[in-house]
Amino acid sequence: MPVGDMGKPLLGHQNGGSDPSLVPGTSGRTIGVLGSGDFARSLSMRLVCSGFKVVVGSRNPKRSASLFPSAAEVTFQADAIKKTDIIFVAVFREHYTTLCDLSDELSGKILVDVSNNAEINHHKESNAEYLASLFPACTVVKGFNVISAWTLQSGARDGNKQVYICCDNQEAKRAVGEIAHMLGFTPVDMGALVSAREIENIPLRLLPAWKIPVFLALGLFLCFYTYNFIRQVLHPYILDKKNKFYKMPVEVVNTTLPCVAYVMLSLVYLPGVLAAAFQLYHCTKYKRFPDWLDQWLQHRKQIGLLSFFCAALHAVYSLCLPMRRSHRYLLLNEAVKQVEKKADAWVEEEVWRMEVYISFGIMALGLLSLLAITSLPSISNSLNWREFSFIQSSLGFVALVISTLHTLTYGWGRAFDESQYKFYLPPTFTLTLLVPCVIILAKLFFHLPCMNERLRRIRKGWERGRYVKFTLPRASGEFSSGESSSIV
Amino acid sequence: MPVGDMGKPLLGHQNGGSDPSLVPGTSGRTIGVLGSGDFARSLSMRLVCSGFKVVVGSRNPKRSASLFPSAAEVTFQADAIKKTDIIFVAVFREHYTTLCDLSDELSGKILVDVSNNAEINHHKESNAEYLASLFPACTVVKGFNVISAWTLQSGARDGNKQVYICCDNQEAKRAVGEIAHMLGFTPVDMGALVSAREIENIPLRLLPAWKIPVFLALGLFLCFYTYNFIRQVLHPYILDKKNKFYKMPVEVVNTTLPCVAYVMLSLVYLPGVLAAAFQLYHCTKYKRFPDWLDQWLQHRKQIGLLSFFCAALHAVYSLCLPMRRSHRYLLLNEAVKQVEKKADAWVEEEVWRMEVYISFGIMALGLLSLLAITSLPSISNSLNWREFSFIQSSLGFVALVISTLHTLTYGWGRAFDESQYKFYLPPTFTLTLLVPCVIILAKLFFHLPCMNERLRRIRKGWERGRYVKFTLPRASGEFSSGESSSIV
Amino acid sequence: MPVGDMGKPLLGHQNGGSDPSLVPGTSGRTIGVLGSGDFARSLSMRLVCSGFKVVVGSRNPKRSASLFPSAAEVTFQADAIKKTDIIFVAVFREHYTTLCDLSDELSGKILVDVSNNAEINHHKESNAEYLASLFPACTVVKGFNVISAWTLQSGARDGNKQVYICCDNQEAKRAVGEIAHMLGFTPVDMGALVSAREIENIPLRLLPAWKIPVFLALGLFLCFYTYNFIRQVLHPYILDKKNKFYKMPVEVVNTTLPCVAYVMLSLVYLPGVLAAAFQLYHCTKYKRFPDWLDQWLQHRKQIGLLSFFCAALHAVYSLCLPMRRSHRYLLLNEAVKQVEKKADAWVEEEVWRMEVYISFGIMALGLLSLLAITSLPSISNSLNWREFSFIQSSLGFVALVISTLHTLTYGWGRAFDESQYKFYLPPTFTLTLLVPCVIILAKLFFHLPCMNERLRRIRKGWERGRYVKFTLPRASGEFSSGESSSIV
Repeated sequence: MPVGDMGKPLLGHQNGGSDPSLVPGTSGRTIGVLGSGDFARSLSMRLVCSGFKVVVGSRNPKRSASLFPSAAEVTFQADAIKKTDIIFVAVFREHYTTLCDLSDELSGKILVDVSNNAEINHHKESNAEYLASLFPACTVVKGFNVISAWTLQSGARDGNKQVYICCDNQEAKRAVGEIAHMLGFTPVDMGALVSAREIENIPLRLLPAWKIPVFLALGLFLCFYTYNFIRQVLHPYILDKKNKFYKMPVEVVNTTLPCVAYVMLSLVYLPGVLAAAFQLYHCTKYKRFPDWLDQWLQHRKQIGLLSFFCAALHAVYSLCLPMRRSHRYLLLNEAVKQVEKKADAWVEEEVWRMEVYISFGIMALGLLSLLAITSLPSISNSLNWREFSFIQSSLGFVALVISTLHTLTYGWGRAFDESQYKFYLPPTFTLTLLVPCVIILAKLFFHLPCMNERLRRIRKGWERGRYVKFTLPRASGEFSSGESSSIV
Repeated sequence: MPVGDMGKPLLGHQNGGSDPSLVPGTSGRTIGVLGSGDFARSLSMRLVCSGFKVVVGSRNPKRSASLFPSAAEVTFQADAIKKTDIIFVAVFREHYTTLCDLSDELSGKILVDVSNNAEINHHKESNAEYLASLFPACTVVKGFNVISAWTLQSGARDGNKQVYICCDNQEAKRAVGEIAHMLGFTPVDMGALVSAREIENIPLRLLPAWKIPVFLALGLFLCFYTYNFIRQVLHPYILDKKNKFYKMPVEVVNTTLPCVAYVMLSLVYLPGVLAAAFQLYHCTKYKRFPDWLDQWLQHRKQIGLLSFFCAALHAVYSLCLPMRRSHRYLLLNEAVKQVEKKADAWVEEEVWRMEVYISFGIMALGLLSLLAITSLPSISNSLNWREFSFIQSSLGFVALVISTLHTLTYGWGRAFDESQYKFYLPPTFTLTLLVPCVIILAKLFFHLPCMNERLRRIRKGWERGRYVKFTLPRASGEFSSGESSSIV
Repeated sequence: MPVGDMGKPLLGHQNGGSDPSLVPGTSGRTIGVLGSGDFARSLSMRLVCSGFKVVVGSRNPKRSASLFPSAAEVTFQADAIKKTDIIFVAVFREHYTTLCDLSDELSGKILVDVSNNAEINHHKESNAEYLASLFPACTVVKGFNVISAWTLQSGARDGNKQVYICCDNQEAKRAVGEIAHMLGFTPVDMGALVSAREIENIPLRLLPAWKIPVFLALGLFLCFYTYNFIRQVLHPYILDKKNKFYKMPVEVVNTTLPCVAYVMLSLVYLPGVLAAAFQLYHCTKYKRFPDWLDQWLQHRKQIGLLSFFCAALHAVYSLCLPMRRSHRYLLLNEAVKQVEKKADAWVEEEVWRMEVYISFGIMALGLLSLLAITSLPSISNSLNWREFSFIQSSLGFVALVISTLHTLTYGWGRAFDESQYKFYLPPTFTLTLLVPCVIILAKLFFHLPCMNERLRRIRKGWERGRYVKFTLPRASGEFSSGESSSIV
């Protein structure tokens, strides 16, 4: 059956037996592996395919042999240890102690701890440090735990995966890094063995960069939903005894989503403005931003993508409006009234408001989807700095301006209509306009020739009172991508 | 003209002449190339750029010289062969025999067969084996056929491309693998020369992983379309002589698409449930799943993406409903009736049903689009196992539950309404509910504490009757990504 | 605070001090860096992390030391220069002259110019050539300017970035290329130092491949918008004094967008037809296409994506139509009329036209979105040539045919209705049909057995009058991906 065959060429054809090293320079070093689980097997496979000689140490070599590639030598633990200097310990933390009988044979060897925990900070001591404490005569290196058995097998496809490595001994670290490199991974030095706890936590993390932005979006959604619920449902119910509760699942959500999207979009551009103000105030780019601003600047991508997600949902909700029964019934009732009145239904101002309003909405959505698409890793990697900044900063700001126009045409004269202040609450759209307007004004201010020139000089490395000579022009612009100038 | 210039720096600037090796260690080995077609030229270019010395053997060196990079030496075939040990044979299979005059010079050399066929299994014998039979004194290596001349030229951009290599001689295979590595490709060892046929078929494959899912989707579409056609068009035509044939292009399609999407989505989660049941029944994770289940587990991504595609089309079709003339005419006729009745058109239950129904639909679509986006290679590569499983498994299951609610609110009381059983056929939605409900119940069952604990232990390597000591905790969770636990 | 921590492991953990080389073979060579700006610091960081010894030359070592990784030695410029042979000059062009005092120490060294300019072709002479003229006793290598300080810090994540290098000395170029390779980049040889100007322009380019397609789309939009404005707004205003200006923001745009999308889609397939005709006429594939055709063939991807963008906008605009007030008012007025007439509103032909028309539209959009998704770099890289050509060429052509059917059912009998010729201008859709129909006919013509066979032979390397022996079958097919056969 040919379907799906492509998935495992690395395994399916390891029929040779002798070492099939294709990568240069891996002249058949011998690596030991203790354990016979999935990870031990996948690792052996990958090591063999990358030209290493592999000795697997098992408590029951006969039973295990069939599980490993035929090119790997499966033998007793003590025997395997003797044949090599670098040993991968693919064993549960709970069973580390079972290796203690072998401590004599292990003495002086490099042990690679590849284990993971079930929870973040599960044990007081990291697994690697625990292993090191059990075998003080060995050099323990932490690494490879971010790689799954699956990744080891499926080969070089996502070979750009990073392997975090730490160890107290530079030589051992270098050797293990070299193995990672041969296996097609990118070794990343994480320093001494105390970093093991951090490395062990990496694969247990759940989208850390998204946590704050998602909670922000949910918080904003809840606030605006409550506000809109009071204005659109509760107010007519209390004052006029009108039952508008049917609006809760669609209409109230659809007035809430654009507010969230719009506020989130403005929150993407606000930290850039603050950073510029900070730099102008301190007259240097070498002063570190406060932590909260730094964090905020680093989360702009996520905030922007959530803003786009809300905007897209808003578009879908809006498009669904005419599909609803309620729309149909209201239309029919209006038709009946219209027949009685026999007047022309046409209201020119309402027609124009709606056409312009929809038009701006589509434009903003179109721009935001361009921004979202260029945020895809494979696309943003192919852009140079100027292109990325043109799209994310300039086009993004245009999207903010068009969203503001969309909001304003939606509002039209309603902000000045007293009947819209239900329970003295102003229309929702007026609340959302605050931050974006500040940003637009601040941007205009920063683009005044005097301010612009000053900012430019600060970002080139200029500081009040002294002149820093050796800075590179581009660096000031480019490096700031993670800091400030990308947006302003 | 600067536009599009970026595309070919590798070529445009090869004006130097001397070897411009930038990659370390490629100390100017000489490689031979026979042939003067596109592939021969692109290969020479790339070899030169990677620091090799290239000798091109041509029957007419004078005429060919202008086609090759100036750094490559173009000479007569016999002459070229003498100067090197490794020769790329960039010649049609049909013209292999023309090289027979050179068999003396070729003896003892390594020949690299880079050819492709026009069809899968075109010849009884693979091209490489045919070449080997013609030149028994040579070592033939199959390889580089999956690389196009275009890829060779456009350089390291998609350098993560794999080059499948096979050969009966380990040393020759290693040498060619090294060249592939220098050229920026990842060599993959496919074993002995008998694998050449398989390697020659690789570039001729047409989306093998998609075949079964696409046929499945088409089959489901046809079945449901016929069923809906009978209920929505044929039934009123036969019983009431009503002409509803206009419903065929849009409305019947739009009741068919959600059925296909919903059933396909449930088929993504069914194999995971079956795999868990299999593991629970056999009390081990080391027993191989039956082949059909293995295949199914490997096609979940494709089935899921097709499900999303159908769901998105369903959304677009639904949004188009109010645009149709038929909708407009029906509305106008209803308005006329309404005016005659002078009653309020409002039906509270229908309003609520529709609002909730639409609301669930949008939520399900939103979740499915998140799943689809995280299936993009560049994004899924950047997620760790926990993140990937959270999105694809947990969020995906939530999407299935919301789709079920969407289906149920769509159905409302219709399943219990006798008039809906046209020709005794139950409403379509009741048919689609079967599998998803089984899955949801099975999932709940597996999450009972006793079952959950048992599954967890089995996946950690535990087997009834004996205790496997050396397995790594994470491996059991991660490796199963291709097997079972990712979904349940 | 763990959030966002992942972003800088390379930096955060460089606490060791001794050289933490993980990549094989970089046995602690010493590299010099002049400058203390962002770029100098990020470069030092990356060099240290890749296992190099780094000596930083600063005018004020004490002040600068804290800015650099502790593993880097920060000393006076003259001192730093003495300790190494390769020196990165991370200094403004304006301050190159300040280094002139050090010209004795620098003599014989390799200087790497990493600088960028603020504008394209800013100076008459490239920065690197200027540096070389100041230090004739040094070998100047241009390179690394396309890498930002940010990329240097964020590490191997987008390690597939290319570093363009040029130099008059092969040895120096090779050495710097090696460093780029060690740092995780792909060195690309750009020849002699005269190419420095071009290399310096690379990071200043703004989406060069998109310029022509975007201006083409804007031009088409303007033309069609004017044409539609005259027909839909001006004509009724002048002849009947009807105010239809409200149609400008949505309706006229929505009749313009599909025209642009359709014409652009046909322009994707036209150059392939022209190229095939060119090859058939000249009876060879070895004659170069004229430049304009070459350019056109290379911009097909961008033209196609813009066509999809316009088509998607058209879909959103169309879906918004029933949301507008104008739609509502027109419907109400029609309802009133209907009540007066008391006739059935139903027009069977109009109903069918609209259902079929919408149906084709959705199909075309669905196919186009598949084409757009497979254009994403991460997906197109994972397809083999046959798959890519099947999707982009075959499915794309089907999309063109379905779009044509969509246009024809939209037009229906209007092309033959005299009242549609406003100001003697034919309906817009008739104008757009021209090119696509030519393409469809040409494709049919090329698929006639005699033509098809001839084209196939030409692409295999056959020429009238002589028989080229050494060409590889696949190459002819694959290489043309950038030329012609991919589409026809």
